[in-house]
Amino acid sequence: MNPGYFITFEGSEGVGKSTQLGVAESWLRKQGIDVVVTREPGGTPLAESIRDVLLTPRDEVMDDLTELLLVFAARSQHLNRFILPHLEAGCWVLCDRFTDATYAYQGGGRGLSRDHIAQLETLVQGGRRPDHVILLDAPVDVGMARARKRGELDRFERETVAFFERIRQTYLERAAQWPERYHVLDASRPLASVSESLITTLRPLVASQS
Amino acid sequence: MNPGYFITFEGSEGVGKSTQLGVAESWLRKQGIDVVVTREPGGTPLAESIRDVLLTPRDEVMDDLTELLLVFAARSQHLNRFILPHLEAGCWVLCDRFTDATYAYQGGGRGLSRDHIAQLETLVQGGRRPDHVILLDAPVDVGMARARKRGELDRFERETVAFFERIRQTYLERAAQWPERYHVLDASRPLASVSESLITTLRPLVASQS
Repeated sequence: MNPGYFITFEGSEGVGKSTQLGVAESWLRKQGIDVVVTREPGGTPLAESIRDVLLTPRDEVMDDLTELLLVFAARSQHLNRFILPHLEAGCWVLCDRFTDATYAYQGGGRGLSRDHIAQLETLVQGGRRPDHVILLDAPVDVGMARARKRGELDRFERETVAFFERIRQTYLERAAQWPERYHVLDASRPLASVSESLITTLRPLVASQS
Repeated sequence: MNPGYFITFEGSEGVGKSTQLGVAESWLRKQGIDVVVTREPGGTPLAESIRDVLLTPRDEVMDDLTELLLVFAARSQHLNRFILPHLEAGCWVLCDRFTDATYAYQGGGRGLSRDHIAQLETLVQGGRRPDHVILLDAPVDVGMARARKRGELDRFERETVAFFERIRQTYLERAAQWPERYHVLDASRPLASVSESLITTLRPLVASQS
């Protein structure tokens, strides 16, 4: 049996990540592919409890490195206890964010040391990277307008436009570096058109496995 | 103002670590030293919530590396938000276990990669090590008998004598490697005698600061 593909969905807020992840899931199922959907940080009960520690608001300021170590602690658990066993069983794993998001949000957005991120990536993942990264890209104002409509104003008001520009640029730089693994979809188009591009991206992957 | 000393208390179960830590604390106070007592994993509200994740029993097996990353996430927070600020303010910090315990328990006891521990130690602590380590050492059977008296049978019954032998050996190897920082006290003697040795160890440190 072939191992499944590990495909991650990345992009800033409001680019339609969850919608397209759902589109990919149903389309792959229709092609007879065994598929699971998961997310980071989280994906197992223990990793979700680490997610709670990361997201619970508290008076105490979380040290940058503490945050990175928690993100990778959750990732180690998720990778070894959920993602890898599913891939080995021939299942495709679709994951809402992965290490690219750490580089984009913590590295690009917040300025945490990329060298620290890279060190932890190697420690936890060895050479393992997603087989394919679907990067949903849109100008920051488009994403912000969409997220506002969903009532996510609070989250945006805490960060500046420059913050989200840095996230977008980090994602695009990484995509440019590994063009064979990254698929950049223009997410400023209507949803149906993005979904079409997504399926065009997935079709050869399905063909390659059958 | 001189920075305070960072002194850790190490040793296996039943060696009287908490008792001697209390003895050190009161004796130092009597010498007019400003002192705080803390513990690992934990030491700040956030680090204590990481401790809860580490210690909460669950069906899901915790990945070794997940455990190490959680231990060092808590340590990073504890070091940067509690230990270092106190030392810089001239306060002495007495800590119940630190990175030596990670080498002894996770490395020696459970066989986790010492290279991974060393990598995370450097990432989180840079060159920072405890100024002095008080290692309370006793033959495994002595510690086990004492812990049994305290009703800690369950914990012991889950691990073999060999496990605790490896912990003890790891501690002793580390003490032999850095004799200027490690103070090995024979904890198989009566408590009062151990306390006397402890104070003999601390006296020149107090003198060096006044």
